[in-house]
Amino acid sequence: MNNNKTIIKGGYFLTPGTDEPVLSGYMTIEDDLITYIGKEEPQMEAGVQVVDGSRLLFMPGLVNTHGHAAMSLLRGYGDDLALQVWLQEKMWPMEEKFTGDDVYWGTSLSVLEMLKGGTTTFLDMYDHMDRVAEVAELSGIRSVLMRGVIGLCPEDVQNHKLAEAISFARNWHGKAEGRITTMISPHAPYTCPPDFLVKFVQAAHDLDLPMHTHMSETKREVEQNVADYGLRPVAHLEKLGMFTRPSIVAHGVHLNDEEIEILARHNVGVSHNPGSNLKLASGVARVTDLLKAGVKVSLGTDGAASNNNLDMFEEMRLAALIHKGVSGDPTAVPAPEALRMATEYGAQSIFLNNVGRLAVGMKADFIAIDIDQPHLLPHTDLLSHAVYSASAKDVEHVWVNGKQVIKHGQCLTLDEEAIRRKAQEAFEGLLKR
Amino acid sequence: MNNNKTIIKGGYFLTPGTDEPVLSGYMTIEDDLITYIGKEEPQMEAGVQVVDGSRLLFMPGLVNTHGHAAMSLLRGYGDDLALQVWLQEKMWPMEEKFTGDDVYWGTSLSVLEMLKGGTTTFLDMYDHMDRVAEVAELSGIRSVLMRGVIGLCPEDVQNHKLAEAISFARNWHGKAEGRITTMISPHAPYTCPPDFLVKFVQAAHDLDLPMHTHMSETKREVEQNVADYGLRPVAHLEKLGMFTRPSIVAHGVHLNDEEIEILARHNVGVSHNPGSNLKLASGVARVTDLLKAGVKVSLGTDGAASNNNLDMFEEMRLAALIHKGVSGDPTAVPAPEALRMATEYGAQSIFLNNVGRLAVGMKADFIAIDIDQPHLLPHTDLLSHAVYSASAKDVEHVWVNGKQVIKHGQCLTLDEEAIRRKAQEAFEGLLKR
Repeated sequence: MNNNKTIIKGGYFLTPGTDEPVLSGYMTIEDDLITYIGKEEPQMEAGVQVVDGSRLLFMPGLVNTHGHAAMSLLRGYGDDLALQVWLQEKMWPMEEKFTGDDVYWGTSLSVLEMLKGGTTTFLDMYDHMDRVAEVAELSGIRSVLMRGVIGLCPEDVQNHKLAEAISFARNWHGKAEGRITTMISPHAPYTCPPDFLVKFVQAAHDLDLPMHTHMSETKREVEQNVADYGLRPVAHLEKLGMFTRPSIVAHGVHLNDEEIEILARHNVGVSHNPGSNLKLASGVARVTDLLKAGVKVSLGTDGAASNNNLDMFEEMRLAALIHKGVSGDPTAVPAPEALRMATEYGAQSIFLNNVGRLAVGMKADFIAIDIDQPHLLPHTDLLSHAVYSASAKDVEHVWVNGKQVIKHGQCLTLDEEAIRRKAQEAFEGLLKR
Repeated sequence: MNNNKTIIKGGYFLTPGTDEPVLSGYMTIEDDLITYIGKEEPQMEAGVQVVDGSRLLFMPGLVNTHGHAAMSLLRGYGDDLALQVWLQEKMWPMEEKFTGDDVYWGTSLSVLEMLKGGTTTFLDMYDHMDRVAEVAELSGIRSVLMRGVIGLCPEDVQNHKLAEAISFARNWHGKAEGRITTMISPHAPYTCPPDFLVKFVQAAHDLDLPMHTHMSETKREVEQNVADYGLRPVAHLEKLGMFTRPSIVAHGVHLNDEEIEILARHNVGVSHNPGSNLKLASGVARVTDLLKAGVKVSLGTDGAASNNNLDMFEEMRLAALIHKGVSGDPTAVPAPEALRMATEYGAQSIFLNNVGRLAVGMKADFIAIDIDQPHLLPHTDLLSHAVYSASAKDVEHVWVNGKQVIKHGQCLTLDEEAIRRKAQEAFEGLLKR
């Protein structure tokens, strides 16, 4: 009798990077781990839960390596605007009004969207992070959380925010059955003066935690960095010691060859956010060059206000498409590479080395998509279909840490009806205040 | 008593280009036409069918202005390959084996996918067109159909194909309650010698029909055109008389300023296929310049083998995103313009002037999407959500020509189960032959 054992019977499994990237067979989950995957049918002991895998394609859960979940409250509130207009007239005045409750309901809306769409791990950099962690714990999702700090303020406010970031990182690291880990996160080199940024590096050393920041998202901020500090952002962050910590930077759109080499040398990951970079007209990151240099490139949605959804299938597809179109090379970012960016590379680049692949010993974070649909037929190459044809809405089931959280498209852990209503009310409340 | 009258009660309606692009109100459909749209509640006579519009966003049906429906049988069969390898080693050897039945089931699969995803009109250029027309008639979709002719063959074969194209265009124009119209379509300037192309222009004059062709999809074909004929493709087609007919060209990726001016002068539409152009690494069309010059730009999916789905929401979003990212201008192709490209401009550019808008006197081709979902909340700007957040799978209901064809996601006109099975069998059959 084994009540903590689940066997997936007779499905297709995506295992990119192996000899057989589309495996037809079986998978066993015991507690929070994958303990078998292969073609042989495992023994069905009494008490084992059996999941019929026919008509389903199983994949590692998607890993979203950069975002601001609560910003879903501002989805569609300001589009097609120049970046500074969007920030100064739309985002910042509304975000200033965000209460802890707004963050709670905005994050709930995002986590619900992400889980239903097959994202099993997300990185979040925002404020009111205790409320974000509450949602993460309750929902069953895996997350890497951090208080993102903008340092354009008096020193006492700076120090207060830093203390908050440190205390959050210390309190929540390893919580929720280990599903929550934390990082130290100055917002960006252009919003944190050098002496302040150095304090984050020290904190990360003290707590033995990795670091995350926005970097080189726009051409303008790179030019400003050179004007202010005589260095481009990568050399600047290197000089301030950030890369002595395990690190991942978001965006990295405007990089020269030397900067790519520095990132590769320090093993710094880059969270590529194609949807947000296109929508805000930031540009197209040099993803093929980054991958060629050995930089771990993963995928992020950024906040829903600049995306405008949290569909990681779409980011995966954008990553596979735009670098072909812009470079003129149809072999750029092939489907298996795009899939690994959205799963395995994503997990590794936020320092979760036991997440992101369907393999023995890995955490049981996986999803199933319904492949018996017109847009996923005929079954020529299911890995191709996952990257080039599928969407968040094709996700049928989701498991995180061995527990099922989405079943036939319904969330088992969160109250969807309440979240939909509360999120709408929160937005209306912000408009009124 | 009026059995041919439907009233949509209390919904949101997208009417881009008007003073109130998101209208909250009512819409009346009588037979195949929209007879009322506005804020006042119309009188509910006996026998009128009432549709509860709450939780729904109504939009004009999407118009796909370039594709090869039967190619869905090759979805995922060859990705991430150089164009010539893809064509010569993957597509052409398989397409050579296509029978009328293959075309029938491939087209059925595509039409099913399109209808379920909110596409109410599609343009199709392929072979075995009688079988395509059969599917179009049966399914209830609106379509613009044409036998696409490749002229790289002996003269007798050329003439046989041309005769087929003419006879198809004559026989099917105006059929299926007027839902089917036809065009005359040489495949491309690089696959049809000039003297052969001229015969198509003559046929289009004789039948008084518009013309469609692939044009300037790749840089290489433009260079070849100059080498072979001393002219770039636009001037070449102008010289051969094609633009004396109402025309729409597909792709138009590689155009110079003079060519854009010629297209604008002759009122030639351009079907922009962003997904296919990116995937095949053809490049990024000059959409903002085309729009600025007054060229009617619409959207197409191309065949599913180079896309790899027929989700027009995705094409709409790609059109809104990539031109921002590549130009560096976040105001490029704003949401209402992307929506009009996918609807109104699409219909106009394939010469269906009573399709593509929710307005009195227009054909009742419209769709409803379920907006009470996490990724479409909060309700900040529903037009933005339709363009930047929604997908084909959010479509709940579809009406074409006043008749409902999709209800709660289920197709009322086609046998989905049979099509799924037959499409898979057709692909397997092609592999074996």
